[in-house]
Amino acid sequence: MRNRSGHSKPKNKGRAVIGIHAVKEAIRVSDVATVWLRQGWKDSHELKQLEQLAHSKKLKIEERALGELNKIADSHQGIVAFVTSEPEFDWNSLKKEECERLIFLDGVEDPHNLGAVMRTAWLLGAKGVFVPEVRAAGLSPSASKVAQGAIEHVPLVEGSLADALDEAKQRGFWTFGLSHRASKSIYELQLPEKVVWVLGSEGSGIRKPIERACDELVAIPQLQSDASFNVSVAAAIALAESFRQHQIAENPGK
Amino acid sequence: MRNRSGHSKPKNKGRAVIGIHAVKEAIRVSDVATVWLRQGWKDSHELKQLEQLAHSKKLKIEERALGELNKIADSHQGIVAFVTSEPEFDWNSLKKEECERLIFLDGVEDPHNLGAVMRTAWLLGAKGVFVPEVRAAGLSPSASKVAQGAIEHVPLVEGSLADALDEAKQRGFWTFGLSHRASKSIYELQLPEKVVWVLGSEGSGIRKPIERACDELVAIPQLQSDASFNVSVAAAIALAESFRQHQIAENPGK
Repeated sequence: MRNRSGHSKPKNKGRAVIGIHAVKEAIRVSDVATVWLRQGWKDSHELKQLEQLAHSKKLKIEERALGELNKIADSHQGIVAFVTSEPEFDWNSLKKEECERLIFLDGVEDPHNLGAVMRTAWLLGAKGVFVPEVRAAGLSPSASKVAQGAIEHVPLVEGSLADALDEAKQRGFWTFGLSHRASKSIYELQLPEKVVWVLGSEGSGIRKPIERACDELVAIPQLQSDASFNVSVAAAIALAESFRQHQIAENPGK
Repeated sequence: MRNRSGHSKPKNKGRAVIGIHAVKEAIRVSDVATVWLRQGWKDSHELKQLEQLAHSKKLKIEERALGELNKIADSHQGIVAFVTSEPEFDWNSLKKEECERLIFLDGVEDPHNLGAVMRTAWLLGAKGVFVPEVRAAGLSPSASKVAQGAIEHVPLVEGSLADALDEAKQRGFWTFGLSHRASKSIYELQLPEKVVWVLGSEGSGIRKPIERACDELVAIPQLQSDASFNVSVAAAIALAESFRQHQIAENPGK
């Protein structure tokens, strides 16, 4: 749908990022077109600090009624930034000799979960989060808030997961699908340097064609056979195990 | 506030549990006073299954207007169970010779995070989640949904964290406070059999007196010094590491 009148929220205003932490990181490292502050922002120490940061970067700052911010998303904490840049993924930037981890999310539809995965990916050094073009949560304002700045750093790559899985394999990645039905535990693995972790939706898991394309299916051990980990928790446990194994390999004295 | 008129929601109706998975587990293992189904529940395959399960357990089932369910909490998925039992924690039930893990949450105020911690605690075998009486999220309907049945199994213990920490130490637990300021990594630890993991709020961390009472402060390694893990992710990484070390110790061939 075209919207070139510029009346209220033209498309080129950028993606909306909400929440104190997320907006702070966006202002720090990304291109921000406009910052909206709720009326009465001077009451808030944190909002005043953000206003100063935005001012120092010469950003366009607008005071808006609370109702306008509420239309973007709940729980905005009084601030919205419209961000026009985003981190880009480039296969060629991955270094041949080093450990690299990528996350593939097949059908994760909850923005809260996507945001949580992005946040952990940033903290544990995953170089990108891949999602299919359909059936996936995008970078909604809510996801931006939960990610707490991670989406300014970790590229979210939308496209065919099957093609991306092929590309990763050709570039020397070993691709693990996480499935609670797998008999092998992630703790039995000697993880290679280049790893893709593939996770499915909580309801239906990884789609069959994607599951078949994985080099190996593995499970995070759990004591309850009927239940399953939250997808952001599963991603965290897998990334932490990659991190642990290679941290120890790189620091054998520890 | 007294409410003995029995008009709408008397206290003794029990705690409200919402969502398909959470209600299913509550009906399966806990005492349920009443089940509310939204009007039109017969349209839903999942709600019909739950109605049959409730019927087979001879529970009181009431059809209610959507608006009434919405008053309990959003995202109820058409079903609410009022549960009158809960798992109880007993120090004396912990076995002397076996691995045991407990989680202490100091100041976690978000019900979503509490529910997520409970869920992972269940899957990874923690025997209880301890929270202070004040400044903590309780077992709200939202927490019950995120926990996906875990709160029917893992006791949530409210009370003085300092006292509980003392009790744990006297019973042979080693108490680790997680802090991103600690210099020692959790991956440098040889974890003892009995471990308490103490986690603070995302904003302000563990309160000083509780932090000082911990035997040791340790960090989950992370690549970004300014950011921090979501508390439910941190709890998961810590519990998974306990699980990994003792699973391997118990199965040295693996």
